[in-house]
Amino acid sequence: MTVPELRIDAARLLTRLDQLAEIGAIEGGGCCRLALTDEDKAGRDSVVGWMRELGLEVSVDRIGNVFGLRPGLEPLAPVMTGSHIDTVRTGGRYDGNLGVLAGLEVVATLNAAGVITRRPLVVAFFTNEEGARFAPDMLGSLVYAGGLSVDEALAAIAIDGSVLGAELQRIGYAGAAPLPAYRPHAFVELHIEQGPVLDAEGLTIGAVEDLQGISWQEIAITGQSNHAGTTPMRLRHDAGYCAAAIAGFLRGLARDMGGAQVCTVGRIDLVPNLINVIAARATLTADLRNTDESLLRQAEGRLDAFLAALGHDEGVTIRTRRLARFEPVTFDPAVIGCIEGVASRLGLSRRRMTSGAGHDAQMLARICKAAMIFVPSVKGLSHNVAEYTAPADLAAGANVLLHTLLELAAQEAP
Amino acid sequence: MTVPELRIDAARLLTRLDQLAEIGAIEGGGCCRLALTDEDKAGRDSVVGWMRELGLEVSVDRIGNVFGLRPGLEPLAPVMTGSHIDTVRTGGRYDGNLGVLAGLEVVATLNAAGVITRRPLVVAFFTNEEGARFAPDMLGSLVYAGGLSVDEALAAIAIDGSVLGAELQRIGYAGAAPLPAYRPHAFVELHIEQGPVLDAEGLTIGAVEDLQGISWQEIAITGQSNHAGTTPMRLRHDAGYCAAAIAGFLRGLARDMGGAQVCTVGRIDLVPNLINVIAARATLTADLRNTDESLLRQAEGRLDAFLAALGHDEGVTIRTRRLARFEPVTFDPAVIGCIEGVASRLGLSRRRMTSGAGHDAQMLARICKAAMIFVPSVKGLSHNVAEYTAPADLAAGANVLLHTLLELAAQEAP
Repeated sequence: MTVPELRIDAARLLTRLDQLAEIGAIEGGGCCRLALTDEDKAGRDSVVGWMRELGLEVSVDRIGNVFGLRPGLEPLAPVMTGSHIDTVRTGGRYDGNLGVLAGLEVVATLNAAGVITRRPLVVAFFTNEEGARFAPDMLGSLVYAGGLSVDEALAAIAIDGSVLGAELQRIGYAGAAPLPAYRPHAFVELHIEQGPVLDAEGLTIGAVEDLQGISWQEIAITGQSNHAGTTPMRLRHDAGYCAAAIAGFLRGLARDMGGAQVCTVGRIDLVPNLINVIAARATLTADLRNTDESLLRQAEGRLDAFLAALGHDEGVTIRTRRLARFEPVTFDPAVIGCIEGVASRLGLSRRRMTSGAGHDAQMLARICKAAMIFVPSVKGLSHNVAEYTAPADLAAGANVLLHTLLELAAQEAP
Repeated sequence: MTVPELRIDAARLLTRLDQLAEIGAIEGGGCCRLALTDEDKAGRDSVVGWMRELGLEVSVDRIGNVFGLRPGLEPLAPVMTGSHIDTVRTGGRYDGNLGVLAGLEVVATLNAAGVITRRPLVVAFFTNEEGARFAPDMLGSLVYAGGLSVDEALAAIAIDGSVLGAELQRIGYAGAAPLPAYRPHAFVELHIEQGPVLDAEGLTIGAVEDLQGISWQEIAITGQSNHAGTTPMRLRHDAGYCAAAIAGFLRGLARDMGGAQVCTVGRIDLVPNLINVIAARATLTADLRNTDESLLRQAEGRLDAFLAALGHDEGVTIRTRRLARFEPVTFDPAVIGCIEGVASRLGLSRRRMTSGAGHDAQMLARICKAAMIFVPSVKGLSHNVAEYTAPADLAAGANVLLHTLLELAAQEAP
């Protein structure tokens, strides 16, 4: 078999996806492996075991990012692939995991065929991509790319009060590799789309050319706790109502701005959270995204103005805390072109597209040329136990990854 | 000293209030003694100890209501007073406790003066008045008045999953007294107003002539969990947004109806409650109150219509569960007149008024003539650690209770 004819082993890839999905499995077929929990440790241990079985040189950096190196013929900058294996609380089995395990499947395929690439290959998984336990999301790759100091990241506090650095120590993933461990020639991430576009259009491969900017804030409201029966409406300072008003405003803002603007209030916590007590305090999150930085700033500005007016009208104090802020990202045209060319040669239907979600690739794009490969998510479901991608699409994505990596790894210096 | 000159000992009353407030004390001077918790048990034990010190015959019924009987000269139906000693999670130190401890203070005053009333006196405290741990609120007095079967009440499930009957056994308050233990000649409850009226008008005593009807529902919304970045606004089935929309609707409903209508969403719980995940499920509570039954029904009907339209528009399933429903109550004119007459003779400023909150007295009103005495709540604060009533007002209320009970206990059969 010649190199252009190489194909990954779909059954082997699916088996590893199933095995990883058993760790932290939850009802409905999903996974709960919040970053740096015992479940995440178990998932990491499995993936590291597979890396070693495949002969990769494993290293772990100070923020817990893990790398498996496959040496090349020449001492050039490596081509890197990978993603994350942490999940949200109600996560699916493909989000993140596919990109890491497809990377291992590429290595297994090359090992079996006895192919040595010119440049080294690295398969990586990054710490706390989801941001479901620690803020910001994409923390490990952000630190890797120099966007956040490692000391600041190690001090991050989990939603359960734990400290990130202590949790890394506890699960045995506080490594010593320098940051960044490698400065790649290129980075390519395979990921499920997590949106409905490819599924709706019946296409197999997305060549991701850009990625939405993300604005995350926590909004804390302090009102006045009081009796729900005896307090006239006009005398209330109801933090719960204010939280609801903000969620309602953001729905209207997204509708009004249209286009790529999306707004989500995914978390609301009231205190004391009792049926007959006007809430004294409310904490909620605002997740705003747009592919256009100026429109994203406009959305943030309109939210700020609404919060100021609400605080005044309702006699409550509103404080905001920035949890994450990433500008929209444009990926590298040469890598995008390479992905499109490979998909074409493999006879796979494809389109260029925007990522609505944040990904580790956007951080790596700060230090090397980067792009992403998407495969369809049925009905666009993600962050949901019902997340699903058909086996043929998983295999197609892994084959596009294989040949994209082969092409990039054959490139000369620089 | 003649009987008309009798006055309660304010210092003794305040001391007992302070002692009871130490049990389950929370920051800011408030109390957390949720019904049938260890804290509630400790509070009950203290009050029962004081009942015994005062020579009262203590009995406990099957639902954990506690009674202290002071025999009269004749074997007639007793005059009963009392309230509750459970609190909300962020409760004050007067709500409920005042009515129970003022009842004991009346007994102490009569003991010291050697006065034996014609009818027996009973000081009672009722189980789970607040409804902050078990639904419905006013559960103990509702069972006492025959409005809910004791078996149904014993099967009530707490917000923490405990079963009421098991919790009563656990804390040693599953008694054997029949239900109702006494069928009173009359029932009078002293309580803080929990609203701003007396404080704002500079009055000392409220003779409560009626009480708002209460409609409590739990609303459960099932939408679809999905990724906050990749899911277009038009394709969302966002249970969190729906919860917010309901809270916003209820604010508008109360404003639109005006008058005595109040609406509160005090509790909102989202699942999975994560920043970057559209909520799959939301559970919230709706607390609607009005003094007019037809208006309260109108409010319920408008909420029902809104929920139906919202479920249709957002593609979510909305189910409601009735947690409590009490019609407005009109108290007994003779007892109200007696309270007014006593306040007048004691030289205390007063007015007739409506209770915005539910009270055990409304349940007792089903089986005997009943009314309530209110004293001011500074700024109307209640269900709040900053709840406050001035010592002079506490004493004034207890003196009105003393002479109202004396007058009622002197009445002939029936």
